Amino acid sequence: MQKIPNYQNVIDAYERIKNQVKLTPILTSSSINKILNCNIFFKCENFQKVGAFKFRGASNAVLLLNNEELKNGVATHSSGNHAQALSLAAKLRGINAYIVMPNNSPKVKIEAVKSYGGKIIFCEPTLEAREKALEKVVSETGAEFIHPYNNFNIISGQGTSALELLREISDLDIVLAPVGGGGLISGTSIVCKSINKNIKVIAGEPKGAADAYQSFVARKIIPMINPKTIADGLRTSLGTLTFEIIKNNVDEIITVEENTIISAMKLIWERMKIIVEPSSAVPLAAIMENPDKFSNNKIGIILTGGNVDLQNIHF
Amino acid sequence: MQKIPNYQNVIDAYERIKNQVKLTPILTSSSINKILNCNIFFKCENFQKVGAFKFRGASNAVLLLNNEELKNGVATHSSGNHAQALSLAAKLRGINAYIVMPNNSPKVKIEAVKSYGGKIIFCEPTLEAREKALEKVVSETGAEFIHPYNNFNIISGQGTSALELLREISDLDIVLAPVGGGGLISGTSIVCKSINKNIKVIAGEPKGAADAYQSFVARKIIPMINPKTIADGLRTSLGTLTFEIIKNNVDEIITVEENTIISAMKLIWERMKIIVEPSSAVPLAAIMENPDKFSNNKIGIILTGGNVDLQNIHF
Repeated sequence: MQKIPNYQNVIDAYERIKNQVKLTPILTSSSINKILNCNIFFKCENFQKVGAFKFRGASNAVLLLNNEELKNGVATHSSGNHAQALSLAAKLRGINAYIVMPNNSPKVKIEAVKSYGGKIIFCEPTLEAREKALEKVVSETGAEFIHPYNNFNIISGQGTSALELLREISDLDIVLAPVGGGGLISGTSIVCKSINKNIKVIAGEPKGAADAYQSFVARKIIPMINPKTIADGLRTSLGTLTFEIIKNNVDEIITVEENTIISAMKLIWERMKIIVEPSSAVPLAAIMENPDKFSNNKIGIILTGGNVDLQNIHF
Repeated sequence: MQKIPNYQNVIDAYERIKNQVKLTPILTSSSINKILNCNIFFKCENFQKVGAFKFRGASNAVLLLNNEELKNGVATHSSGNHAQALSLAAKLRGINAYIVMPNNSPKVKIEAVKSYGGKIIFCEPTLEAREKALEKVVSETGAEFIHPYNNFNIISGQGTSALELLREISDLDIVLAPVGGGGLISGTSIVCKSINKNIKVIAGEPKGAADAYQSFVARKIIPMINPKTIADGLRTSLGTLTFEIIKNNVDEIITVEENTIISAMKLIWERMKIIVEPSSAVPLAAIMENPDKFSNNKIGIILTGGNVDLQNIHF
């Protein structure tokens, strides 16, 4: 039986990482509230170090390594943000980070991993190729594999964003986050349900990568073979641990169209004057497609990251 | 002799407008600090209502109208942000705002003025055409003309941004703001020099619209006939009142190249994950072109606004 993080694990993670991560601001937009007739508090993890919430989990995992594990460094596969996060967390502890990345990763993310000192191993953009390349690097270096989301310490770390959100805005009706591999929504749901079980926890997911939705409905893991979505952070499938948490804690998973993701992203850029990546816009897209469900509610949204290739954005 | 605002006028303006304007956040970027070897505090007026600091001055001016003046509304000419600001400030007092805008104004700014209820009168993009169109609308409606910058109450209102900045970060060595018509840098310089005359106040200006620099050096107003710069908020020339204040309070005006403005803007978008318009990037461009002058200093920069046509941005 897998060990599942609880609220205290998130609080412990917060105390462990709080001097290393940014306390990110919570922003509001009166014009977006007016358009959608609700009251939204955006937790801005796009302002987090490395430009994404992933630095929280990676910091927690690296700070928990013992002396033996520290010797050979850490390794992972990641489409980008976890790669950057682990690279920086490793750098701050003075250890190596070996990063297996699909060769179609956004250029800005590849450059960022390099700038944080991560050692990149490229592979084909399939789960199989990733795992094979990772196995090879782990066996060659002895590095500790830190899974991007199906990992106890990663999930506890990702939960700290919702912890900060609810400590600042305590009376939320609903908390929304996107779901890819499920690390963020898992940590978020643990925090929300522990603080107040009446807070609805809702995940947003692109229709083109709806494995979490399908798994949630079927009550068993149904992996996605060939996900297609602009939200590059959400192309991964649930893990055993994140599925278990989501199954028990999340109230609903809402799938959204690609064009709504783009509209939501544009709305955030134009009205809030902040840069978020497509994955971040998925929860707002869920509200835009289901306005009645959210009308008049006080809603927290975790904006997951801001790492986009500006050259590739054409509204 | 023209009446020049003092520190107390800015404090009065702050008390007058504080319930209507946003207390904007101050952000920092460790990566930008590392690149430029200084410690920069960015005052984010791009998050201000209407997306620019201009709402401060407009709010102050409109809140100071007497009952007689309120009857016929307000009027102005503006390349955009002052237009939006005056429209919203007027709307909040339930009066009309007549806005003369050059017909080459960014589409996003035109739409925004409309959305705030401003009544737009288009004109050719020359100072002459603007003034003629404005004269006509004022004589027809009896509206009170609120100049975008050469106005006592506007300048007092714009100074409130620096007031908030220095109340939060008191020990700055240098404060930088861009200069177009000079309303912002005038109010900023009054505040900085009153709080601590050792704070250097430096204006940044595009080389292609360097009337303030030329006027500052010549000690007399030298207007710009045909300004050419991507920084559309800075194409205006100094007024008599702003020139007088700048001449006495500003330590230096630094002119910058267009490509540095674009690089600075890109740096802010990519590293800080916030959207600023080209005018906002001019102070950072001044640091990038003169790194030694700013090295190891604690610097405040007023990011003036975030209103850009996303369709027109191609990095």
